[in-house]
Amino acid sequence: MISVEEAQARVIAAFKPIDTEHEDLSHFAGRVAAEDIKAVVDNPPAPIATVNGYAVRQGDGEGVRKIVGRSTPGHPYRATVGTNEAVRIVIGGVLPEGTDAIAFREDPIEGSDEMQFSYSAAHPEHIREAGLDFKAGSVLVPAGKRVTARDMAVLASGGVTQAKMRRRPRVAIASVGDELYAPGAERRPGGIYASTGYGLSAMIANWGGAPCDFGILEDNAQEIATIADADAELVVTLGGHSVGDTELIARALGSTDFSMETWPVAYRPGRPLLFGQLGGTPMLGFPGNPASALVCALLFIRPSLDVMLGTNQNTCSLPQRFKCGCHNMTARLTAELPATDGRKTYVRARLVMQGGEVWAEPYPILEYPMLSVLAKADALVVLPPNGPAAKSGDVVEIIPLDGY
Amino acid sequence: MISVEEAQARVIAAFKPIDTEHEDLSHFAGRVAAEDIKAVVDNPPAPIATVNGYAVRQGDGEGVRKIVGRSTPGHPYRATVGTNEAVRIVIGGVLPEGTDAIAFREDPIEGSDEMQFSYSAAHPEHIREAGLDFKAGSVLVPAGKRVTARDMAVLASGGVTQAKMRRRPRVAIASVGDELYAPGAERRPGGIYASTGYGLSAMIANWGGAPCDFGILEDNAQEIATIADADAELVVTLGGHSVGDTELIARALGSTDFSMETWPVAYRPGRPLLFGQLGGTPMLGFPGNPASALVCALLFIRPSLDVMLGTNQNTCSLPQRFKCGCHNMTARLTAELPATDGRKTYVRARLVMQGGEVWAEPYPILEYPMLSVLAKADALVVLPPNGPAAKSGDVVEIIPLDGY
Repeated sequence: MISVEEAQARVIAAFKPIDTEHEDLSHFAGRVAAEDIKAVVDNPPAPIATVNGYAVRQGDGEGVRKIVGRSTPGHPYRATVGTNEAVRIVIGGVLPEGTDAIAFREDPIEGSDEMQFSYSAAHPEHIREAGLDFKAGSVLVPAGKRVTARDMAVLASGGVTQAKMRRRPRVAIASVGDELYAPGAERRPGGIYASTGYGLSAMIANWGGAPCDFGILEDNAQEIATIADADAELVVTLGGHSVGDTELIARALGSTDFSMETWPVAYRPGRPLLFGQLGGTPMLGFPGNPASALVCALLFIRPSLDVMLGTNQNTCSLPQRFKCGCHNMTARLTAELPATDGRKTYVRARLVMQGGEVWAEPYPILEYPMLSVLAKADALVVLPPNGPAAKSGDVVEIIPLDGY
Repeated sequence: MISVEEAQARVIAAFKPIDTEHEDLSHFAGRVAAEDIKAVVDNPPAPIATVNGYAVRQGDGEGVRKIVGRSTPGHPYRATVGTNEAVRIVIGGVLPEGTDAIAFREDPIEGSDEMQFSYSAAHPEHIREAGLDFKAGSVLVPAGKRVTARDMAVLASGGVTQAKMRRRPRVAIASVGDELYAPGAERRPGGIYASTGYGLSAMIANWGGAPCDFGILEDNAQEIATIADADAELVVTLGGHSVGDTELIARALGSTDFSMETWPVAYRPGRPLLFGQLGGTPMLGFPGNPASALVCALLFIRPSLDVMLGTNQNTCSLPQRFKCGCHNMTARLTAELPATDGRKTYVRARLVMQGGEVWAEPYPILEYPMLSVLAKADALVVLPPNGPAAKSGDVVEIIPLDGY
C-alpha cells in the first residue's frame, strides 16, 4: 500500500508546465496567465474631474476668472490655461494643462465670459490623478493566475490587447468494457451506460483542460492499443481488465513503448490505481465504478492539470478555492464520524453556512460508492489514515466540490 | 432615493422565464434544466456482482454445485440457473436469472465441472441490486438546477440523452462615450480604454447568459438609437450622458417606443440607475465608472438572469453560492467598519478561512471605486443603511465574488 500523498507525488512528477500561446484579450477569461501581464498605460491616463465645475489654477487665489473653454469626456481643452483663466469641466473631463484644482461657480458676471470665484477652491478629492488606479508597468495579473471577469476589465483599462496564456492541456478519455453502451442505446442484460466520461469531460473543462472523449472501447489489448493515436498530454482509461496487461498491449501496439504499474493506494473509496506511459504520454487507469473514478479524477487529474497550467495557487481566491479544490479547506462536523483504518477516507457531505461558519453534514458511509450520492454532495470530508473517531463540532479538512 | 431592494424588485419584475430548447446530453453542463430530468432506466440496470465468485441459489444450502457457465461484464449468462447449479461470476457481471447470492470457492472436485460449497453463502453485500443507486423515473436533476459535472455522469448512467434547457438569455452591452477607445488604440488626451464591457461579458457568461458586446458608441441620440437593432432579452448601456434623454432618443428612433427613468438608488458605490425599455426590451443604464458599473451588474443583471433562467436557488450548493452570489452569505470581520448613512454600503474585502470560519478583511473604503481594488477583492461586505459601526469579530453579510 502507498499513501495518497505518495501516489499524488509520483503522478505529478510525470508532468511539466505546458507550452504557451499568444491570445487576444477577448479570449483571456478563465485561462491561466503564462507571464506577468503588465499595464501598458496609466489608469486614469490623465487627471480626470469627478464633478462638474471649473478647472482653475490654485495659485491664482480668489477672484475673477476668464472662462476660456470647455473640457468634456472625449473633448479635452487642448491649450494651456494661463493666469486667471478657467475652463468649464464636466465629470470625466480631463484636467487641462496648467490647472490643478476644481472650483465651483460663484455668480457669473452678466454679459461676459468671466466668472467670480470666492475662494481658491483646492479640491484634490474631485480630481482622479493619472495612475491613481494603477501605473503603466504595474502587474495587473501575475503569471499563474486564472483570469477572472474583473481581471478582464482591469486588463482592458490598462491597454492590454495580447498576452501569453498556457495552452489548455488535452486529456484523452477512454471508457473500457464490454458491458458499456452509449447512453440510451439498446443494451444486453446487465449492460451499463458509460457515464464517467461525461462527468470527467465537464470537470476537466472546469479545471482548465481540453477533454477529448474517445468513447467506449472493448476490453481487449487491440482496442486499448488504439489510444496510442491520442494527441494528448494525458490519457485516462476508465475500467477495463486488459488495461493493466502491459505485455498484451505492448504486443498489440507492436512496440514496447508502453508501461503500466498497479498501485494499491491507501484510500477509500477507490481501487488500485494504474499509472504508466504510452509513447511518452502519461497514462492513468481509473476504476470502472463512476463514483470511484470521479474521486480519482479529483485526486490525480486536477493536480496534474495544475502542474501543466503552472497555476500559482496563491493567486486563487477563497471563493475560487470552493471551485478548484486546490487548497485544504476546513469545516465543522454536524455529526460524529468513526475512526479510520489504515486508509485515508473521503466521506461525502453537505455543506451549510451559519454565522460565518461552514458546517459539513456527512452522508452515511456506503460500502459501494453511488453516483446519486456523489452528485448531491457539496464536499468530501477528508479523514486521515488511522485517525480517531471525529466528534460533532470538530474542525475537519474538506475538499469542496463545485467545479467537480 | 429608493432602496436597493426596491430597485431590484422593480427591475426583476420586467423579466419572465425565457423559452426552452431541447439539448443533447453532451451540451448540458452549466446549463439550467427547464424540466425535471428523470432517469430512463434503473441504475444498476440489473443485480451486479461486486466481487469475483459464484452466483448461486441461496435456497440450495450447502453442497455440491454444477458450474453451468460464466457471467462477466458485457457477457451475461443467458439461461435460468436451476437447482444445485452455479455460474462463475466476476466483478461487474450481472447476476443470472434464478440466483440470489454469491458464494466463494471451496475445493473444486478434480476432473469435473462440479464444485463443493460448504455453506449457503448469502452475501447480499456482494450484490448491487437493480436500482440501488436510483430507479427509472426518479428525478436526477430538478427543474431550475444548473447541471454540474457530476450531474452529467448521473444523467448518462440513467440513460438520459436529451432534455429541455433554458435558452441562454442574450444581453447586449453598449459602451457609450466620446472619451472611449478600444484597448490599445491611439487616444486623444484623457481618452479612456473601454473596459467594463470585457468584464461584464465574462460575468454574464459565468452567470449563464449570452453576452453580445456592441462595442463603443458615441454619446449622442443617433448612435444610441442603433441599439434598437439588438436582438436581446436585456440591453445594458455603460456611461453616456445622452442615454437618459428620452425625448432625444425617441426622436432619433423615429418612434416613441423608448422610455427611461432615472432612479437615485440608496447605495454606495454607485450613481443613479437608469431603467427603461426599448421596443419592449428591458434596458439598464449603468454609470461609466467601470468599478461602479460592475457592482451594478451584480445587483441588477445577475438576479434578472436568474428570473429568465428560472433558477431554483434551493438547488444551488454552498460551493456554487460562492460563485453565483445568489444567496446571502456571512463572514466575521477582521476589523471594524464605520456606521453607515442612509445608503446601503458595499465594502470590498479579502476572505480567509480558518478553523471552518470565513473571515472578511475589509479594504480601505475609497471615495472613488477603483478597478484594481475591485479585482483583488474576494467579496463585498454588505452594510445596511443607517447601520451602527461594526466591530471586529462581528458576523456580517457578504456577497462572494467568484464568477464575478
